[in-house]
Order: sequence, then C-alpha cells, then structure tokens
Amino acid sequence: MKITYCARSERSTRNRFMRLKHSGDLRRAHRVEVVRSFYGGEPRTRLELANQLGLSVATIGTIVGELTKAGFLKEAAGARTGGGRPATQLTLRGGGSLVVGVDVAETYVTAELFDQAMARLARKRVPVLENAPEAVVEHVLAAVAAVRRQVYEAPVSAIGVSLPGQVEARLRPLLERRWDVPVLLDNPLKAITLAEQMFGAARDQDDVIVVNLGTGVGLGVVAGGRLLRGATNNAGEWGHTVLEAGGQPCRCGGRGCVEAYVGAGALMRLLEGSPFLVSGDQDATVARLAEAVRLGDSAALETLTRFARPLGLALANAVNMLNPELIVFGGWVSAALGEPLVSAVTPVIKEYALATPFEAATAVLGRHLDNPVSLGMAVLAFETHLLD
Amino acid sequence: MKITYCARSERSTRNRFMRLKHSGDLRRAHRVEVVRSFYGGEPRTRLELANQLGLSVATIGTIVGELTKAGFLKEAAGARTGGGRPATQLTLRGGGSLVVGVDVAETYVTAELFDQAMARLARKRVPVLENAPEAVVEHVLAAVAAVRRQVYEAPVSAIGVSLPGQVEARLRPLLERRWDVPVLLDNPLKAITLAEQMFGAARDQDDVIVVNLGTGVGLGVVAGGRLLRGATNNAGEWGHTVLEAGGQPCRCGGRGCVEAYVGAGALMRLLEGSPFLVSGDQDATVARLAEAVRLGDSAALETLTRFARPLGLALANAVNMLNPELIVFGGWVSAALGEPLVSAVTPVIKEYALATPFEAATAVLGRHLDNPVSLGMAVLAFETHLLD
Repeated sequence: MKITYCARSERSTRNRFMRLKHSGDLRRAHRVEVVRSFYGGEPRTRLELANQLGLSVATIGTIVGELTKAGFLKEAAGARTGGGRPATQLTLRGGGSLVVGVDVAETYVTAELFDQAMARLARKRVPVLENAPEAVVEHVLAAVAAVRRQVYEAPVSAIGVSLPGQVEARLRPLLERRWDVPVLLDNPLKAITLAEQMFGAARDQDDVIVVNLGTGVGLGVVAGGRLLRGATNNAGEWGHTVLEAGGQPCRCGGRGCVEAYVGAGALMRLLEGSPFLVSGDQDATVARLAEAVRLGDSAALETLTRFARPLGLALANAVNMLNPELIVFGGWVSAALGEPLVSAVTPVIKEYALATPFEAATAVLGRHLDNPVSLGMAVLAFETHLLD
Repeated sequence: MKITYCARSERSTRNRFMRLKHSGDLRRAHRVEVVRSFYGGEPRTRLELANQLGLSVATIGTIVGELTKAGFLKEAAGARTGGGRPATQLTLRGGGSLVVGVDVAETYVTAELFDQAMARLARKRVPVLENAPEAVVEHVLAAVAAVRRQVYEAPVSAIGVSLPGQVEARLRPLLERRWDVPVLLDNPLKAITLAEQMFGAARDQDDVIVVNLGTGVGLGVVAGGRLLRGATNNAGEWGHTVLEAGGQPCRCGGRGCVEAYVGAGALMRLLEGSPFLVSGDQDATVARLAEAVRLGDSAALETLTRFARPLGLALANAVNMLNPELIVFGGWVSAALGEPLVSAVTPVIKEYALATPFEAATAVLGRHLDNPVSLGMAVLAFETHLLD
C-alpha cells in the first residue's frame, strides 16, 4: 500500500491563507476540524459546533451530514433543551474504522490499536535489542501484528508510524508494501505535539511548545493553533541549535548542540561518579535520580539544578523566538523527573528570556506521558479517511 | 479614535483551527484573503480566485459582491476568453479609501500615503534628533500631516504605525486620540515581513524567515503561509536569543544576545581602528564598508567574513528551529551590504545547520528595501475596513 510521508495529507488541509489548490481541500479540512473538535470533549449540537469553529450552520450541517453518513459521527443519547426547541447533540461514533499508531523509539517499539473515537483497544511494546534497520522493521511488523490479533471485531484501516529523523531514511523503504492498508509516516515530535494538542496539556491553546526530552531532544511547536512543520517537516530541531559554539560533541556530528547538554546522554555524563549512575542504562539512571530528587537528596537536587541551566537557557531562546503561551515538558526524561524538573527550569528561563514573552508563558508537565507518540500517529492515520 | 494594538484585528482573521468565535470572522477573513491575493498580481476571474484560494465559486461570488459594493474591487478593462464563454476579470480599485503607514525608527520617522490598491501617493521622512517620547510623537504627527496635505482628492480612512518594542509602551499612550481616524499599532518586524510576503521576495512562499538587520535585529516569521505572532505578538525576538552565555553586553540588559554580535553597534565595534569607521554614525560607517566591499578591498571583505560568523550561526539556529524555504535579508544593514552579505553568511549557515533544513532553504536579499515598514503598516491599516 502507498506510504504517505511528512503528513503531506495534513499539509493539504492548510487553510486558504496557505493557498489550497482546490475547493475540495477546504471541505476536507473542515471534516478534520469537526472531528478534532470532539476529541476529549463533550457532545454538542450543530449550532455549538458552528460557533466554536467559526463556520456557518449550513456548512456545519453539510459536514456533519457527510461524517454521519460515513459512520464517524452519531447522534448522542440525550438531547439538551435550551431556551428554544431541543437540538440534537452529536458525538464521535466508537468502533468502526480501527487504526494503529506505532512509536519506533531507540530501545523499544510500541504499537497501539485505537477505534475511530481514539479509544485505545490494545497495546504491544517490544524491546529493540538490535539497531540494524531490518531488525527494527521486524519488531515494528511484529508489534503491529500483535495488536491486530488482539481485536477481531473490526478491520484495521490505516497505520501511522513515527520514525525518528536519524533512522527515517533507512527504515522507510523497508516499511513499504509490508501492510495491506494505507501507512502514514511522521516524526515523533509532531505526533507528541498533536497528542498534547488534541487530548493533553495543550488543549485549546494556540501557541505552544512541547519540549521532548529523551535520548534525543526536540521541540514540537503549535503556532496560531496549528502544528509548525516548516518547508520539509523538519521544524523543531531545537536539539541541534547551537548552545555553545565549538562546545560538547553531539551525536549529529556537530558541536555544542542543545542535545549535547540536555539529552539523556548529557545527564548520564553529569552523573558520572555519582551513586545514581547505572552504567549503560539511561532509564534506570534517570529513575534513580528522580527517586532521589523526590526524597530531597541534596546531591540529586544539585544535579537537577545543574541540568536545568543549559535546558532553561535553550528554552529561553525558544520562548523569545516563538512567544508561546504554554511550555509543555514531554518525553520520558520529563515524565521521570516530573514537577521538580519544571520548577528547576522555570527560573532559568526567566533569567535568559525577555520579560514580556516570559510572562506570557506557563510551564507544565505533559499530560499524555504514557504514549503520546502512538496516539498522535493514530490520529494522523485516521485523518487519511477524512481527507479522501 | 480607538487604537487597536498588536494587530488584534488580524488575529481575529485566524482560521477555524484557531477557534474563531463567530462565523462572521470567517467571512471577514475571506475578504482579507481575496484582497491580499490581488497584491502585486494580475486581474483574475471568480473561478481563478476560487481555485487559487480553495473556496467554492459561490463563496467567492459572495465575497467579490461585498468587496465590489464596498468599492474595493472592480471589473478589469478587458475580458479574457478561455475555451468557453468569456469571464469577467476583477482587479483592485485604486483611489478610494486612503491609508497612511508610518515607520517610527530610531533616527527617523517615515510616513507614506497609499491608495487602497497600495499604490504610494506621497511620502515624508523626518529626522528624529531627540529621543524623548513627546518629541518622537510630534515628529510622527508632523510626518502624517505632511503626507495628508499632499493629497486632497480622498480622505484618509486609517493610519498604521509601527513602533519598535523598546519604545512602544511609552509612545502608545501619547498617540491615543491624536487622529480623527482609526489607528493600528504593530511592530516593524511584523510590518516588514507582511510587506515581503505580499509584495516582495516572499510572495507565494509558505515558510519564510525575514532577518531584519539594523541597529536592532529581529526575525519576522511566516509559518505555513501566516505571520507568526505568538501569544503576545512578541514572536521573532531572535535578536535576544543567547548566542554566547555571559558574552557581550546587550542593549536589553542581558549578555551574549544575538543583537550584541550582529546589530549595527556590533559592526561598529568590529570596525574600531579601521578607516571605515565614522565615529558615532552607523549609516555612514556601513555605507563606507559596503562601498569598500564592492571594490573588493581585502580589509573590508575580512570584516564582512568576521561579521558573517555570528550571523550565520544565529541564522542556522533559526533554520533548524523553523525549517524555512526562504531566508530574506532585510533591514538597512542588509540593504547597504547587499549580495556580498548573503554570500558571506550562507556558508556559515551551512556549517551550523542540519543538512536537510539547510538544503530546503534559499537565502535572498529582501526586495522591498525602500520602506517595507510603512507599506506593511498601510496594508494592516487598510484591512481594518475589511474586518468591519
């Protein structure tokens, strides 16, 4: 089956300022928007949808009609009465078209199966012990097959796979024609950010940065309500902006990159010689550090404070550049360190950012730390139906 | 008259992904979009507009009807015949509603008068010798009065004033109720970027950074076809991202900011002891340097190469973050140094940016170097009519 890359389909939902080439694109964009507006929210009437989305009731009527006929929306059980006559409430229809979201990380592959209302039906996580592309692809196929086997009542209609930038070029050809349904590829930053925007901490926020802290680091950006993708879907490479010219060597081959100071590898370096270090095991090391921080261990707190300096400086640069209202701390390192990380970093952001953009921004932990990557990819995969 | 700040009116044209609150907002957004699509372009038919903007012919018909009735559009002189029946071509109607765009810079105030098709009818530039806010405001009032006196045939219907961030808070209250027409305030970065996007080097480009190099420096960003504003209209403060922690003192009170290395003041410092330096005169100094660069003077070229290093590094960071397809060099320093600046900076961007975003980006000189600030402010001021 055809593989779509770079969420090209989503690019085609860009609004009119973005020079849609066909009027049908706008109708498809409206469908996506109506479905998205139901995620994590209440049932609502056509009139409420029209008001929320700034569309006419007639337009909403047409879109709702299409989506209902296609089986994506249904009338909700009850009907609310306002001052006037009762109006029918609509909601997402569960079941139906199932989708799989896959998170290909450096040490594991997670596949999750969702129904079309994005309720999770099954999950499979397999460790990646060998990094050869062929081996990784076999893990991906196995994980997807496992979740598909767990649910028989409906067919899977699309698969979304998140591939980290550094392996994308090698994995992509190996994934082609391995499944019988459409496949959408994107990168984890975009998936995480979309998940936070649809279901998480960034709901109803227009200008957001989602900081992904793990072995690699990056920034997902919502600008004016939309995912920032850039010309070739590479926006958000904050991890490879230079923090110190000629500084620490980075995995990318450069020197002084943000990632070389705030990636899990840098945290391991910071912990050398400390009792928190579990040599060769980032997960265990960060977990130990996090536990000690929670217990108020002074050496652990001191490490957190040192780690927060380059992170806060690099985030201050992002705050000055992008002027977000919300900074969401995501990724497994943020999940492990939790609120103490946010508290340690915030004063450093304040020290380096201009006063106005600093005051405009609130820093919070991401809410969907379980697996926002698979969830975001499932949403993107599902939307291929809405864009047909 | 009421002063609108931060292009709040333009914010209200945000598309549905941005949660418009009323369906009328979308209609107003369509009006802006139709008018913008004519800037710098050819007359076109309703069908061509519909295809270009991704709207239905019926919607375009309604919008064109409204805009024609309001006197903003007219039928073009000729009618083109395609394969089928001849279709009426539309174009912007000149004259009509005049607007003034004002550029308040550190050493001058420029006011320009435009008709509603953005043809410039008059221009007045006055030097600013004293920086007290009251004095600056008198210069602004004088410049605007001068251009209004030059054109009698139509009334001025709106005034757009660009204020640099550092003086905005002090000037804003002094400008209130000084004119008899609506006034729109914004910052120069946004105005320059809009001018480049509507009339200049960035036309038909969706992902652009406009580097404004002058005494202060900043970045205007077009992301997915739209101006990036951020939560409080402060996006683009690239000039105050940190290039070197604890480095050169900056006018903002911080240390190591990009501006402290690539602003005109930094260039003056770089030229200390050289024959190009005209002490206390940035304009004359940069003009001398530019002339020497053009003549191939080796000391001048060496200075340009040194100046290009921090600039290229800081731009590489922006390229990694934003993944633009186009980098536009704007501002008076770029205008003075010209193509040799672009040529000197490009290899440094390549050195520090990731390969994929670097390859995606093209660097060019800005096209509207005359006064994009007044032009951009005039467009924003005119659009207050379309948003009524």
